Amino acid sequence: MFKQLQAELALAHNIHFNDVSLLEEALTQANYINEHPNYTGRDYQRLEFLGDAVMQQSTAVYLFKRYPDWDEGRLTELRISMVQTRAFAALSRELHLDQYVQLGRGEELSGARNRDSLLEDLWEAFIGALYLDQGQEVVMNFLSEIMFTKIDEGFYDQFVDYKSKLQEHLQRHGSVKIAYTKLSERPVENNEQIFTVEVSVNEQALATGEGKSTKEAEKAAARAAYQTLTKN
Amino acid sequence: MFKQLQAELALAHNIHFNDVSLLEEALTQANYINEHPNYTGRDYQRLEFLGDAVMQQSTAVYLFKRYPDWDEGRLTELRISMVQTRAFAALSRELHLDQYVQLGRGEELSGARNRDSLLEDLWEAFIGALYLDQGQEVVMNFLSEIMFTKIDEGFYDQFVDYKSKLQEHLQRHGSVKIAYTKLSERPVENNEQIFTVEVSVNEQALATGEGKSTKEAEKAAARAAYQTLTKN
Repeated sequence: MFKQLQAELALAHNIHFNDVSLLEEALTQANYINEHPNYTGRDYQRLEFLGDAVMQQSTAVYLFKRYPDWDEGRLTELRISMVQTRAFAALSRELHLDQYVQLGRGEELSGARNRDSLLEDLWEAFIGALYLDQGQEVVMNFLSEIMFTKIDEGFYDQFVDYKSKLQEHLQRHGSVKIAYTKLSERPVENNEQIFTVEVSVNEQALATGEGKSTKEAEKAAARAAYQTLTKN
Repeated sequence: MFKQLQAELALAHNIHFNDVSLLEEALTQANYINEHPNYTGRDYQRLEFLGDAVMQQSTAVYLFKRYPDWDEGRLTELRISMVQTRAFAALSRELHLDQYVQLGRGEELSGARNRDSLLEDLWEAFIGALYLDQGQEVVMNFLSEIMFTKIDEGFYDQFVDYKSKLQEHLQRHGSVKIAYTKLSERPVENNEQIFTVEVSVNEQALATGEGKSTKEAEKAAARAAYQTLTKN
């Protein structure tokens, strides 16, 4: 089974994994081992320990070099949105790690295969295995391709609560009145609508945002306002 | 001034730092900059962001490879005792970073130069600068020499609360009676004494420990008992 993952990695990401048993270790859960006495390897937890640290450094090095003008507050903020459960779970699914993981029967029945917290662990364990098998440079290149490009696509914005951040920022010197007002809604294809919302502080307009729901449009407006206000 | 640190690093650690301005950045505090308009560099905080992550990965990689039989729980435990304020502050002092840091007047007067939390930041910033100037391999060699050798000297034990750990371990299945009993005290040179303490659980002796105070001897006994009980 893990030969197939090895082939997928070569085809889709040009990664030529040498030690298939490392891949299997990264994708084997502890209870699976209890139920399969013939499996002589370990579970994924040691590799997860390693991969967690490799993810931290790789992301920090990338952000440090890419944003030479950012202070450590902005760097930390973006790193936090990148290095967390839902972001890692999405990457695990992209690599089909959810399909390959070997689970104990109880975990399988309880739906662990689709649980973000498991998929986060698997991502870290996979990166730990990749680091051991291929070294730092291959890890960095792979992360650049699969993860860091997502910064420009706005992928990590979904993990940032911009409405709270905007509120915190605006109220740092005391209470203000923040309002979100729907300006318009227009029909688009597939029976969907696009909403436009304006965010204002003390009756003064800050920014507008669009989205397929008023909630989405509010988030977009908050993000636009926050990013404008905090630009260096 | 930072040329002198550069020379010290070459002499004591065979590190030939190229970019002295990186050393200065790693050792300059924000308020110093406000008070010295001629200093055109940054403060240490971006380098601290980087060095924090480099320390995490370097330590994890080292422990992962050195202890192939340890599970992630033991690895994490040792890592936590290594990667924390007091341990990093001790390393900063060993490198005399406390003597080189450029502080604002207020921080100087409030004694920041001797404060562990500042010295922790400086250590991380220094490692960030070393990583940028010399790369991963030099960082790993330097940490092996100055930090990882301290594992064998028992240096990190002082940061572990073995009495609490022993108690947790012994009471994981329910309440037990843990007692520390002084067995002896004997005078040594300099008017000092060595105490010997025994730790027992439900009246059954587990281990003994020695120290220059009963508190120290209790800690040593707890450590010996904990390490014996949790040996694989």
